[in-house]
Amino acid sequence: MQSLQQKASAWSGVDPNDAFAIDETNLFEKLGLQTFINLSTNFYNRVYDDEEEWFRSIFSYSSKEDAIKNQYEFFVQRMGGPPLYSERKGHPALIGRHRPFPVTHKAADRWLQHMQQALDSVTDIDEDSKIKMMNFFRHTAFFLVAGDELKNQNQSVACKHAANKPATE
Amino acid sequence: MQSLQQKASAWSGVDPNDAFAIDETNLFEKLGLQTFINLSTNFYNRVYDDEEEWFRSIFSYSSKEDAIKNQYEFFVQRMGGPPLYSERKGHPALIGRHRPFPVTHKAADRWLQHMQQALDSVTDIDEDSKIKMMNFFRHTAFFLVAGDELKNQNQSVACKHAANKPATE
Repeated sequence: MQSLQQKASAWSGVDPNDAFAIDETNLFEKLGLQTFINLSTNFYNRVYDDEEEWFRSIFSYSSKEDAIKNQYEFFVQRMGGPPLYSERKGHPALIGRHRPFPVTHKAADRWLQHMQQALDSVTDIDEDSKIKMMNFFRHTAFFLVAGDELKNQNQSVACKHAANKPATE
Repeated sequence: MQSLQQKASAWSGVDPNDAFAIDETNLFEKLGLQTFINLSTNFYNRVYDDEEEWFRSIFSYSSKEDAIKNQYEFFVQRMGGPPLYSERKGHPALIGRHRPFPVTHKAADRWLQHMQQALDSVTDIDEDSKIKMMNFFRHTAFFLVAGDELKNQNQSVACKHAANKPATE
C-alpha cells in the first residue's frame, strides 16, 4: 500500500526533497511576518471571491479573518518563525483538522491555482522562495487529498462494523 | 464547543504556554541526536514489554524498530533539529496518523507513565529539559485523545448519513 508521502509525491509530481526544501533556508527570517500576512490575505481574498460555489463553500464555516490568521500563523511556524499556531491552537494536525472538508484532487488543484496567483501578486517574495513554497504547497495539498481518502476508507469500514454489531451493544 | 487545544489543556492540566515551552530553547542542539535515540529506545522497550496486553496490542501493527525511528525522528524535528521525519514520511499529521488506534484517556496515562520512566532512565537529560519535554508530551497525549473523540463523533454522523441514503445511491 502506498504511504501518504508516496501518494502526495505521485499526485503532485513533487519529490519529498523538493517539498521540504523550505527547511534549507529560514523563509520566515528572509521574508518577514508582514509578507506572510499579505500572502494569506491575498490568497483568501481570491478564495472567498471564487466564482465557483462548490469551492467557495468549503470555506464557508469560518470567517475570512480566521482563515487568514490560521494560515499565516501555520506558515510562519512551519517556515522557521515562532510557533504562533501551536501556542494558540495546538499541533497543526493537518489531516485531522481538514477532516470536515472534502479535500479532493479537484479542490487541491483549485487551491493551488489561487495560491500561485497570490504568490505572484505579493511583492517581496523572491523567485527562489516562491519555487520552494510552491513545491511545499503542492506536495502538502496532495498529502491532504491522500489523508481525505484514508478518512473515507476508515469510515466505510467503521460503518460496516457498526452495522454488524447487535443492537444491544 | 471546546477546541482540541482546550480539551488537551483541561485533561492534561498543562497550559499551552508550558506545553510549547519546548520552543524556548533548542532541545535538539542541547541534547543531541543520540539522546533522542536512547529515549525512544528506552520508551519502546517498556511499551513492547508492557504486562498489560490491551496497551501492548495498540502497538502490534509496527515493529519496535520502526516505532523507535518514527518517534525519535519526529521529536528531533519538532525540538529544533533537522526535519528527518517529514523528509521520510511527510507531515507529522499527528491526529491523522493516530486514527487507527484507540487513543483513550487510559492509554494516554499509560503512555505517559512509560515516558516519564524513560526520561528518568536516560542519562544526559537535565531537569529543565525533562520538565519541558514532559509538559509537551502530556499536553500532546491528551490532544490526541481529543482527536480520537472527534473521529468517533464524525464516524457516527457519517454512518447515520450512509444508512439514510437510498440503496441505489
